[in-house]
Amino acid sequence: MPADNALLADPYSSRIGTQWEIAPRRDPVLWDPEAQGPLNPNQLETFESWGYFPFPKLISSDRAKSLLAEATHLQESLPPDLDHVISEPSSREIRSIFRVHQDNEAFADVCRDDSIVSIARQILGSEVYLHQSRINFKPGFQGKEFFWHSDFETWHVEDGMPRMRAVSISISLTANTAYNGPLMLVRGSHQSYVRCVGETPDEHFRSSLKKQEFGVPNREALSLLAEQGEIVAPTGAPGSAVMFDCNTMHASASNLSPYPRTNLFLVFNSVENELRTPFGGTPPRPRFLSYRP
Amino acid sequence: MPADNALLADPYSSRIGTQWEIAPRRDPVLWDPEAQGPLNPNQLETFESWGYFPFPKLISSDRAKSLLAEATHLQESLPPDLDHVISEPSSREIRSIFRVHQDNEAFADVCRDDSIVSIARQILGSEVYLHQSRINFKPGFQGKEFFWHSDFETWHVEDGMPRMRAVSISISLTANTAYNGPLMLVRGSHQSYVRCVGETPDEHFRSSLKKQEFGVPNREALSLLAEQGEIVAPTGAPGSAVMFDCNTMHASASNLSPYPRTNLFLVFNSVENELRTPFGGTPPRPRFLSYRP
Repeated sequence: MPADNALLADPYSSRIGTQWEIAPRRDPVLWDPEAQGPLNPNQLETFESWGYFPFPKLISSDRAKSLLAEATHLQESLPPDLDHVISEPSSREIRSIFRVHQDNEAFADVCRDDSIVSIARQILGSEVYLHQSRINFKPGFQGKEFFWHSDFETWHVEDGMPRMRAVSISISLTANTAYNGPLMLVRGSHQSYVRCVGETPDEHFRSSLKKQEFGVPNREALSLLAEQGEIVAPTGAPGSAVMFDCNTMHASASNLSPYPRTNLFLVFNSVENELRTPFGGTPPRPRFLSYRP
Repeated sequence: MPADNALLADPYSSRIGTQWEIAPRRDPVLWDPEAQGPLNPNQLETFESWGYFPFPKLISSDRAKSLLAEATHLQESLPPDLDHVISEPSSREIRSIFRVHQDNEAFADVCRDDSIVSIARQILGSEVYLHQSRINFKPGFQGKEFFWHSDFETWHVEDGMPRMRAVSISISLTANTAYNGPLMLVRGSHQSYVRCVGETPDEHFRSSLKKQEFGVPNREALSLLAEQGEIVAPTGAPGSAVMFDCNTMHASASNLSPYPRTNLFLVFNSVENELRTPFGGTPPRPRFLSYRP
């Protein structure tokens, strides 16, 4: 148990004992309901209630196709032993490439595209910056699962993100179907914070990006959230996207289909929610995982 | 390579070299198109064209519920080291229980239920017998996948089933949803026979029932079948079912949801298709896997 009073007072403390808990969210979902932007009031209300919003066509299919070609090029040309290139748990096959906006002009363009960034600004009620960018590859027949997790739990504990004031967006570069391991979310789960059991090992990110074993919610908590909400898996053509709150519980199954699932994943954080010392007491993770302006 | 001419002449030879092949099916799907039974002409035509047929309600939900209670009782009471009780690849958790019609009167009743058996008789155009019965448990959060396979390939090579004249039926004892690893099938794949690469190890069934590594179709073949057909995953409430041809390519993904997927799986073989010496040259598998009347 931590001795630090500040840590005990943290509303989002986690991994500090053997007890799990479902605690209420202490932050708004829409930080400025009057904020102007691309979403209409119905869409904003849906995002607030569900914790996510699906876009059938966030970018054009031509642009998605061209980004897929860039992603494939990076996958084939980057050495898999770079820190920001993550391989599968039991092979050297590339699972994720981080900070793609730094390596590639086409991805950088998406990350500053006002039609996307303005949605994040509208939800978070402030200027935003790019906290993380990555490509997730889930190859046909063999792409492995991502177990249920709240991104915010990790970003809070391991990266020092103070409040739930960030949004993620997953943009489909290939079709996301019911059969190739699409993103699954628990509707409404963003309103609950699951304190996880256990401590954070040193340099946890080196294994957690392959297969997360700490900061994983327990099964009782997940069952309760799924009973209160509903599991959904928005699917869509290349160019479709799902924007979701940083605390929405999500996962994705393995990909047994012949069709790869390749998604571009961007995280925007509010400039009023800048990272501090990690709340879990470990050193900050590398900048490719959690950018500090 | 086998020296035996009879084996070379086998239209469904498989695992005899390093080459794969997609060969045409040499058998009808409906063995007597005039056969009378519960399916109407449209339903028969659908089965013939797709290689499967979904039943929204094959048995009542009350009966499914009571069978689920029996299945759970067996799971809790049978020692996991019995030959016909199969555990998960990396734990002692029970994955499948075979020959459930011998151990339990409620399952025996389903296996001789004329409303079910008569469908198999109608499709296979003859009297039938029960080739195999099993319960497949896929527990929430951790149920593992079954990779793509044609049951007939194994039944032919390892069990000596001569022709494609058997049907399987998977009856949902829990809801089968898009999120708990439902049965996936490749529509139309029953018309193609994929010869697999490799040999059959001794006592292959001891590992293949946990995780199959031989008699597995290669990725090129699966991609071609999926391009010609379409991947489908019929879902349904407890009591729903899918009947499918013995050669329809199928799989099921892992179960990340909190909800177990428990199915009763029955195989009916035509009495005119009795088992012979296995075509792959290995000794016959145990009777709990492939009954010999």
